[in-house]
Amino acid sequence: MLLARQAYPKAPEPWIDLSTGINPICYPIPSLSAASWTRLPEENAVLALESIAASAYGARSAALTVAAPGTQALIELLPRLFPAKRVGILGFTYSEHAICWRRAGAVVETVAHLADLVSYDVAILVNPNNPDGRYVPVPDVLTLAEAMAARGGRLIIDEAFVDVLFEGASLVPYLPEAGAIVLRSFGKTYGLAGVRLGFAIAGLEDAALIRAAMGLWAVSGLALEVGSQALDDREWLKQTRESLISNAVRLDGLLRKAGLKGVGGTPLYRLVSTDDAALWFNRFAEAGILVRAFRDKPQWLRVGLPGDADEWALLEQRLTTL
Amino acid sequence: MLLARQAYPKAPEPWIDLSTGINPICYPIPSLSAASWTRLPEENAVLALESIAASAYGARSAALTVAAPGTQALIELLPRLFPAKRVGILGFTYSEHAICWRRAGAVVETVAHLADLVSYDVAILVNPNNPDGRYVPVPDVLTLAEAMAARGGRLIIDEAFVDVLFEGASLVPYLPEAGAIVLRSFGKTYGLAGVRLGFAIAGLEDAALIRAAMGLWAVSGLALEVGSQALDDREWLKQTRESLISNAVRLDGLLRKAGLKGVGGTPLYRLVSTDDAALWFNRFAEAGILVRAFRDKPQWLRVGLPGDADEWALLEQRLTTL
Repeated sequence: MLLARQAYPKAPEPWIDLSTGINPICYPIPSLSAASWTRLPEENAVLALESIAASAYGARSAALTVAAPGTQALIELLPRLFPAKRVGILGFTYSEHAICWRRAGAVVETVAHLADLVSYDVAILVNPNNPDGRYVPVPDVLTLAEAMAARGGRLIIDEAFVDVLFEGASLVPYLPEAGAIVLRSFGKTYGLAGVRLGFAIAGLEDAALIRAAMGLWAVSGLALEVGSQALDDREWLKQTRESLISNAVRLDGLLRKAGLKGVGGTPLYRLVSTDDAALWFNRFAEAGILVRAFRDKPQWLRVGLPGDADEWALLEQRLTTL
Repeated sequence: MLLARQAYPKAPEPWIDLSTGINPICYPIPSLSAASWTRLPEENAVLALESIAASAYGARSAALTVAAPGTQALIELLPRLFPAKRVGILGFTYSEHAICWRRAGAVVETVAHLADLVSYDVAILVNPNNPDGRYVPVPDVLTLAEAMAARGGRLIIDEAFVDVLFEGASLVPYLPEAGAIVLRSFGKTYGLAGVRLGFAIAGLEDAALIRAAMGLWAVSGLALEVGSQALDDREWLKQTRESLISNAVRLDGLLRKAGLKGVGGTPLYRLVSTDDAALWFNRFAEAGILVRAFRDKPQWLRVGLPGDADEWALLEQRLTTL
C-alpha cells in the first residue's frame, strides 16, 4: 500500500486494497490469555491445535497434521526436506513454489495439463488455483498421486483457498495417500495473515519429518491460541463461506458493469480479463483501488473483496467513474 | 508445568514455576492495531523494527540487524547457512547449539577454556552463560573473533541474557567484526516468549545471508508491532534491569536461607550448588516449586525469579518448610 501511495500520489484516499486474497472480514480477534504472550509455546498446546486442525480439515489423525508459522514457511521448507531434480508445476500459478524449488537447485517446469505432472520427481498443484480458480476434483488428484507414488514421485497440493470453495473440496480426508502432501493456510480464510499459521497434512513419515524440521517453538503462543479457537468455530466458517460466495457474485457484477470480463477466481478473489491489464491497473490505481497484475499474464487482473459496507459503497462509486 | 503436576500430584497449588530464565514481569502487553493481525507483515514494518533493534542494541546499522521469529529459529538456521566440520562450544551451556550443529553433521566438542575455541571452524560462546552466568568481557571476545577470522573461522555469540546484565556488556556495538555473529533474544528480557522474536547481528554479508534464509513473512505482524514498541522503550529496560538485579539478590538470600549455595547466574536466574540436585529438585517439586535440573550437572539447580508480590510471599513461605 505504501508503494501504491507513492506511485499514485494523486489517487483519492482512502485506498481500497483489493490486491490480496485475504478475507477482509477477519475472525473476531479474541483477547488472548497472558500465558500465550509470556510463556514459550508448550508442546501440548501445539498438539491441541493440531488435533483441532485435523478435525476441522477432516484429517484422519492429528499425527498427520503439522502446524507451521504460515504456509510460506512450509513452501520454503519442502525443497530442503524432499530434494528433487525435476519439479513440475501446473501453471499459471502462485510463483513462490517455483522460486523456492529453483533456489534449492531443482529444474522447475511449468506444465499446462494435469497429466503432464506425473513424470516429475515432485509435482505441485495449487487447488483451487491462484489466480484463475481452476479446480481439479479429488478423484483426479488421487489418481495422479497414486501414479506418481508408483514411480517414486511426490505430489504437493497447495489448498490455500480450499476452505471457502465448498464442503468436500479438499483432499485431506483421503490422506494418507502415498507421497501426497497438502498445505492449508489459516491466515487467508480467517483474515489473520499477520498471525502466521498454516498446516501441512501428509503421510505419517512425511508429517514426522516436517514436524521435526519445523523446530522448537516455531508457532507462536498467540497463533496457537487464536488458531485453536478459530478452527474450532465451524459455524463462523460456514457463515463466512456463504457470505464470501455472495460477495464474490456481487463483485463480479460490479466488475462486469465496469467493462471487465470475469474469467475465474475463488470466493476470496476474482480474475478478470481485459485488453490491456497494465492500462486497467493504472486506471484502478488512479481511482485509489489497488488490484493485482501479473507480469506474465498481460490480460489478467486479480481483484480481491472489499471489506465493510463503506468500502463496498466507495468501490461501487469509484468504479462508475473509471 | 503440566508434566510437573502429573509427576507431583500432591504438590500444593498454585505451582511456582521457576524453571525458565524468562522475565516473569512482562512488558505491558499493548493493544495491537488490526493491521498487525490481518495483513501480511510488510517489508517496511520489518525494516522499522530492525532499525529500532539496531538502535536499542547499539548496532552500527540496521543492515547488520536481522529480525527472526525467535532466537531458536536462528540457532536452527546457522548450521545450514555456515556448514562446518568441527564446532567448539564453551561449556557447560545451553544444549540447543550442540544439538542443532550435530544434527547438521558437524563434530561438536565442548571445551572448558575460551582459548580452546580458536581452532574450530565455528565456535559458540553463550555470553553471559546459561546457566552459570560466566561472562567473557568484550575485549577477550573480540580478540578471539579476530584470531578465528584469521584462520577462516566464525564465532557465534549467544547473548540471550545480556540485556539485563549491565550497560555495555554486549559485543554488538563492536560489529562488524569478521566472522562474529551475535544472537539477541527478545522474549526473555521482555517476558514475551510466546511472541517469538529474536535477532542476529552480523557483518553485512552474513546478515544478508541470514535475512534471505529467514524467508518471506517470517516474523509475525504481532511480533513486529510489540517488538518495535518494547525495544524503543529504554526507560522500561533500565527500570527492569534495576529491579531484576535487586530481585536476584533477594532470591539469593532466600535460597541461602534454605541451605543452597549460590554459584552464579544472571539477573534472570540463579544457579545453586547442592549435595544432590535430584533430591533437592524433588523437595522443591513436592512443595509446588518447579526449578531446572541438569542431567550432566548432578549438583546444580537453576532457579528463576518469581513474579508478583504474592508469588514472592508464597515462595518464601514454602522455602521455610522444605
